[in-house]
Amino acid sequence: ANDDPCSLDYDTTENVIHQREEARRKSWDVYKVQAARWFVALLIGIFTGLIASFIDYMPCAAGSGIPQIKCYLNGVKVPRVVRIKTLFAKVIGVIGAVAGGLAVGKEGPMIHSGAVVAAGVSQGRSTSLGFDFHIFEYFHTDTEKRDFVSGGAAAGVAAAFGAPVGGLLFSLEEGASFWNQNLAWRAFFCSMVSTFTLNIVQSYIKNSPWDLSNPGLINFGSFDNLGYNGIEILIIMVVGLLGGLFGALFNFLNHKITLFRTRYLYPRWAQVLEAVLVAVITATFGFCSIVINNDCKPMVESRDEMQVQFFCPDGYYSSSTNLFFDTPEASVKKLFHQPIGSFEASTLGIYTLGYFLLACWTYGLSVPSGLFIPSLLIGAAWGRLFGMGLQYVVPDAKWADPGKYALIGAASQLGGIVRMTISLTVIIMEATGNISLGLPIMLALICAKWCGDFVGQKLGCGHGIYDMHIQMASVPILDWEPPHLSEKIHAPKVMSHPVTVFRMHESVGRIVDLLKKEIHNGFPVVDHYDPDEPQVWIENPDFYKLQQRLKMSDFRDNYPRYPPIHHISISPQERNYTVNLEPFMNTAPYTVHVTASLPRIFRLFRGLGLRHLVIVDGDNLVLGMVTRKDLARYR
Amino acid sequence: ANDDPCSLDYDTTENVIHQREEARRKSWDVYKVQAARWFVALLIGIFTGLIASFIDYMPCAAGSGIPQIKCYLNGVKVPRVVRIKTLFAKVIGVIGAVAGGLAVGKEGPMIHSGAVVAAGVSQGRSTSLGFDFHIFEYFHTDTEKRDFVSGGAAAGVAAAFGAPVGGLLFSLEEGASFWNQNLAWRAFFCSMVSTFTLNIVQSYIKNSPWDLSNPGLINFGSFDNLGYNGIEILIIMVVGLLGGLFGALFNFLNHKITLFRTRYLYPRWAQVLEAVLVAVITATFGFCSIVINNDCKPMVESRDEMQVQFFCPDGYYSSSTNLFFDTPEASVKKLFHQPIGSFEASTLGIYTLGYFLLACWTYGLSVPSGLFIPSLLIGAAWGRLFGMGLQYVVPDAKWADPGKYALIGAASQLGGIVRMTISLTVIIMEATGNISLGLPIMLALICAKWCGDFVGQKLGCGHGIYDMHIQMASVPILDWEPPHLSEKIHAPKVMSHPVTVFRMHESVGRIVDLLKKEIHNGFPVVDHYDPDEPQVWIENPDFYKLQQRLKMSDFRDNYPRYPPIHHISISPQERNYTVNLEPFMNTAPYTVHVTASLPRIFRLFRGLGLRHLVIVDGDNLVLGMVTRKDLARYR
Ligand SMILES: Nc1ncnc2c1ncn2[C@@H]1O[C@H](COP(=O)(O)OP(=O)(O)OP(=O)(O)O)[C@@H](O)[C@H]1O
Ligand SMILES: Nc1ncnc2c1ncn2[C@@H]1O[C@H](COP(=O)(O)OP(=O)(O)OP(=O)(O)O)[C@@H](O)[C@H]1O
Ligand SMILES: [Mg+2]
Ligand SMILES: [Mg+2]
Repeated sequence: ANDDPCSLDYDTTENVIHQREEARRKSWDVYKVQAARWFVALLIGIFTGLIASFIDYMPCAAGSGIPQIKCYLNGVKVPRVVRIKTLFAKVIGVIGAVAGGLAVGKEGPMIHSGAVVAAGVSQGRSTSLGFDFHIFEYFHTDTEKRDFVSGGAAAGVAAAFGAPVGGLLFSLEEGASFWNQNLAWRAFFCSMVSTFTLNIVQSYIKNSPWDLSNPGLINFGSFDNLGYNGIEILIIMVVGLLGGLFGALFNFLNHKITLFRTRYLYPRWAQVLEAVLVAVITATFGFCSIVINNDCKPMVESRDEMQVQFFCPDGYYSSSTNLFFDTPEASVKKLFHQPIGSFEASTLGIYTLGYFLLACWTYGLSVPSGLFIPSLLIGAAWGRLFGMGLQYVVPDAKWADPGKYALIGAASQLGGIVRMTISLTVIIMEATGNISLGLPIMLALICAKWCGDFVGQKLGCGHGIYDMHIQMASVPILDWEPPHLSEKIHAPKVMSHPVTVFRMHESVGRIVDLLKKEIHNGFPVVDHYDPDEPQVWIENPDFYKLQQRLKMSDFRDNYPRYPPIHHISISPQERNYTVNLEPFMNTAPYTVHVTASLPRIFRLFRGLGLRHLVIVDGDNLVLGMVTRKDLARYR
Repeated sequence: ANDDPCSLDYDTTENVIHQREEARRKSWDVYKVQAARWFVALLIGIFTGLIASFIDYMPCAAGSGIPQIKCYLNGVKVPRVVRIKTLFAKVIGVIGAVAGGLAVGKEGPMIHSGAVVAAGVSQGRSTSLGFDFHIFEYFHTDTEKRDFVSGGAAAGVAAAFGAPVGGLLFSLEEGASFWNQNLAWRAFFCSMVSTFTLNIVQSYIKNSPWDLSNPGLINFGSFDNLGYNGIEILIIMVVGLLGGLFGALFNFLNHKITLFRTRYLYPRWAQVLEAVLVAVITATFGFCSIVINNDCKPMVESRDEMQVQFFCPDGYYSSSTNLFFDTPEASVKKLFHQPIGSFEASTLGIYTLGYFLLACWTYGLSVPSGLFIPSLLIGAAWGRLFGMGLQYVVPDAKWADPGKYALIGAASQLGGIVRMTISLTVIIMEATGNISLGLPIMLALICAKWCGDFVGQKLGCGHGIYDMHIQMASVPILDWEPPHLSEKIHAPKVMSHPVTVFRMHESVGRIVDLLKKEIHNGFPVVDHYDPDEPQVWIENPDFYKLQQRLKMSDFRDNYPRYPPIHHISISPQERNYTVNLEPFMNTAPYTVHVTASLPRIFRLFRGLGLRHLVIVDGDNLVLGMVTRKDLARYR
C-alpha cells in the first residue's frame, strides 16, 4: 500500500485547529513567510546550480524522472520520488552501469535533482539524512512543497541548458498544473540563481574566475547570423512534419518495447541483463557501421577537435568515428557546425537509423535516462541529411545550409517525441544563443506537435512520451481539460457510494477500525453541530488533554509521513469512548450537487487541486464521494 | 448603468437547455470546434500582424488600453473596450492631436488592437460594422472570448516588438488570470503568425520580398557580443535598484497628477487643452534645452543617420538635436549604439529629467498612450549617463560600456514602472536579438521590481502603473492570491444578505419587476424540484411555445448584448401567469458553507472565474450572495 501513488491535497483544511492558529498570525508573520519563500528559492537555485556543476563530471548521474515530477506537480505523489535517498541511490547505482555509452542525456537527472533539492530545502530537514533545522515549518504542506518543486524543476532545466527562461517555461508547460504570478516569479528567480551559480563554478573550473559568459551544462555552440527566406517556410514545415512523424513512430515503438518489458522482463536480473545487452549492442553497432561504411575525409589542420585515423589511409581521418565515439553533446555540435561535406549521406543515414532504434530501446530501461540529447542527436542527423539533399536539389541556394537544417531537424525530432512547443523553442534559442531562427523553430515545433498528435492517434498513442509513460503506469493524472463529450456524464455515474462517514461524536473503536482498513483517506463528518445539544466530551482525561493540545504544528512536524494507525494501541475499554471530531473537521468543505456534470466536477477538482469532493443532494445530505481516481477513469 | 464595469462569467450555466444541446453533440463537433479554435487563432495572428504593419505608418494610433485589457482578462468587462468602434474612434481622434511629438509609444495600441481583433474575429461578426457571418457561434461565450482575447494581446505584443515568446509571456504575466496549456499553445500560435505576417508585409515594403529577417515594429538594433563579468553583477544590481526607485517615483508622481486630473480637469475642453499644453511644452522643452546646452560634435562621414548642424559651427552637428527631435525609437537606438563620447553628460541629464516629467504627465492624459518606449528612453538616458560615470571612475575597464548600461538602465526603468520581470526579460532579449545579456537583465529587473515595490509601498502606491490605474478607476479586479491575514474574515462578513431569490414557479410580474430594477444579475432559484408534484405550466400558449422553443442559440445569437427587459411589454393579465424557471436554472451551482473563510471563498471564486457564489447553511438554505465586488473590497 505504501508503494501506491496517492494524491496530494492542495486545499487547506479549515478546521478549528487551523483557525486557532490563523487567529494568532500577525502581518509580520506574513512578511516573514514571504521572505522565507524567496530565501528558499535562492537556496534551491544555488544548490541546483551546484549539483549541475557536479553532474557535469559524471556522465549519467540519475534517471529521467520527468514523468514522476510531472505527476507530482499534477497532484499525485509517486512514492519516494522527491526523497534525497532516491537521488543518491540512482547516482550510485547507475554510475558504473552505463559508462558503456548508452543513448542517454543529462537533462532528466538535472530536472529530477532540482525537484529533490526543492523538496528537501523547502522543508528545512531531511528524514533520510536525519537532520531537522526546525525552520520553514510553515512550508510543511502539500501546496507550498509543490510550488517549490516546480521552482526546482525550472532551476534544473535552467542549469542543464543555460536556459533560465526556458526552464521556467518547461516547468509551466510540462509540469505545473497551477499557474500563479507569484509562483512564476519565484520559479524564475530559482532558474536565474541556478544558472548564475553554475556559471560561477564553471568559470572557476575553466580558470577564468568570474567570467560569466559560460552557458549551461549542455551547449550547442552559437550560430552565426542565420537568415531564412519565404520559400524556406514551406521546407521548414516539411521538416517539422517529418519530426512529428518520426516522433510518433518513436513513441509507438517505445510503447511496444515498454509493454514487452513490463510483461516479460520483470525479474530484476532480466532488467540488468537487458541494460548490459543494450550497452554491448550500442558499442557493437558503432564499431560495425564504421567497418562497413568508413567515411574517410582529409585531415584539416586548423580544427581543434581530435581527428582519429581509424582504418583510414594516412592524412585522412574517419568522420564516422568522429560521430559515433564522441559524447552525444559533442556529436550534436558537430552535426550543427561542421562545414559542408564533413559527412557522407550514408554515414548519416546509418547513424540516424541505428541511433533511433537504440534510443527507443534505451528510454524506459531500468537504467533510466534523459531523452533530450538522444532525440536532438537523431534529429540533427536526419536534419543534416535533409539539408544535404536540399543542396543536391538546389546547389546554388546559399540558404540550404546542412547545419541549419540539422538544428531544425533536431528541434522537430525532440518536439515530435515530447510534444512541447513553447518551452522547447526557448530552450533551443537559449542553448544556441540564436534568436533569429526562433520563428522557424517555433513553426517546425508546432508542425511536429500537430503531426505527432495526429499520427500518434492513428497508432494508438496520441500523447507525448512522458504522458505515454504516465498512462502506462496508470497513474491517475488529470488533464488540463475535462474529457470530450463528458457533459452527458453526471455525478451519480462518477461518484462512489455508499460513502463511509463519521458522526460528529464518533466512538474510538469505529474510527480505529476504519482507519486500520486504510482504504480511504477522507471521510465526511455528517451530524450537524448543534450548540444547544450537550457536548459529549471524552471521559479519558488523557484523550481529552491530547485533543486540547493538538496544534497545527503537530501535523506539520510529521508531514508528510504521519505515524501509521497501527502504532497506536487502544484498550477495549477505550474503544467505547466517544471522540468529538469537530475540531478536526473542515467546516466548509467543497461540495457539489448531484446533478452536476463531469466537466463541472472536473473543473472544481482540477481548478482547486482537491483530493476529495463530496456529492450532496438538495438538502445537503452526503450521497457520494469523488476522488482523483474516479475522475481519471474518464479520458 | 451601461457604463459600469460588469463581471464576466467563466462558468457554464448547466441548465436543461444547455444539457439538451450537449446531448446532441457528436465527437465530430468536438473536432470541428477545436479546428475552428486554431483557425480563429490563425486569423487573429494575421489580422493583428496586418494592423501592426499599418500602425507603423501612423505615429500614435490608439491609446494604451493595457489596463482595460488586463481587467477584461481578469473577468471585468470595462464597457466597450473590445469593440471595433473603440479602436476606430481612438485612431481617428488621436491621429492629429499628438502629431506634436508627445512622449508616447506604440506598444499600447498594438496590444489593444490585438485584443479587439481577437474579440471581433472570434465572434465571426461585428455589431458596429453590421455584419454577421454566422460562423463560430460556439464561441459566443465569455470563456471562449476571453481565451481569444488573451491570444490577441499576445499577438499584439509579438508584432510590436518582434517578440513572439515575449508576447505570450506578457499575456500570461500581466494579463491572463487563467493558465491552461491549450490556451497557451494557441496564444503562442497567434503570436507567431502575427510576427510572420508583419515580417512578410514589411519585407514587401522594404522591397526585399520574402526576406523574413525583419523583426517587429520596434527594433533596438542588435548588440555585438556583450560579455560581463563578476564585478559587474553588483553594479547591475545597483542599476536595477535605481530603476526601481525611479519607477516608484514615476508612479507616485503619475498618481498625484492623475488624481489632480480626475478632480479638476473633468470637462472635455479642459482635457483637450491639457493635451495641447503638453504637446507645446514638450516641443518648447526640447528647443530650450538645445539652446541652453548645445552639444556640438564633429560630423562623422560614415554614419548614415542625419546629423543636423543646428546652431553648431561648420563641420559640427548638434547631438542634442539628434536626441530630442528624432522619433523615440530612433533615440533609444542611438543611446544604445552610438560610440563612446557621442553625448555630453549634461545633455543626458537634462534629457532624463525633462523626459521623465513629461512622460509622467503624458501617461493618463485623455490622449492615451503607450508607456514602453518613453520608459525605455528615460532609462536608456540615465543608464548611459551611469555608464559614462563608470568609465570616468574606472577608465581602463573595457566592460564599462555606456551602450550596455543604457540597455540595462532602460530595462530597469521600464521594470520599475510596470513591475514585470519574466516577459520583459524576454521581450528585451528578442527585441535586441541578444541572449548573452539575458541574465544581467533578469537580475536588474528583479531588483527593480523589489525596490519599486518597496519604495512604492512607502510612498503609498505599491503596484505597477497598470495596477495603479486600475485601482484608481476602482475596478473590482481580483488579485492572484487572497489578501493577507484574511483567514479571520468569514462568509457572513463578506456576503450580501438578504438575498433576492426566485421560486421555481415564479409569477411573471415579480420577475419583470425585479429585472427592471436591474441591480442584480443573478438570482438563486429556491424551491426544490419534486417530480411527483404536478407541474404548473404557463397557461398562455404563446409563452408556453416560447419556453419550449428556447435554445442555446437564442442566447448565443444575442451575446453579449441581450435585449433589455424594458423592450418587453407585459399586459397586467400576463403578470399573473406563472413561469417555470427550471429549464433556465443552473442545476448544480457552486455553493459554499457559511463557515467558510475569505481565502476559501476567494480561491473558489478566482479559481473557477465565477460571477456569483451562493452561501448556504448546513441544510442548503440560501443565506447570502458573494460577487466579485464583495471580494474586491478586501485588498
Ligand atoms: N469515505 C469514503 N467512502 C466511500 N468511498 C470512498 C471514500 N473515500 C474514497 N472513496 C472511494 O474509494 C475509491 C478509492 O479512493 P482513493 O484511494 O482515490 O481515495 P483516497 O484513498 O481517499 O485518496 P488517495 O488514495 O488518492 O490518496 C474512489 O473510488 C473513491 O471515490
Ligand atoms: N440576488 C441577489 N440578492 C441580494 N444581493 C445580491 C444579489 N446578487 C448580487 N447581490 C449583491 O449586490 C451587490 C452588487 O452586485 P454586483 O453588481 O456585483 O452583482 P451583479 O450585478 O449580479 O454582477 P455584476 O454587476 O458584477 O455583473 C453585491 O454586494 C452582491 O453581493
Ligand atoms: Mg487510496
Ligand atoms: Mg451589478
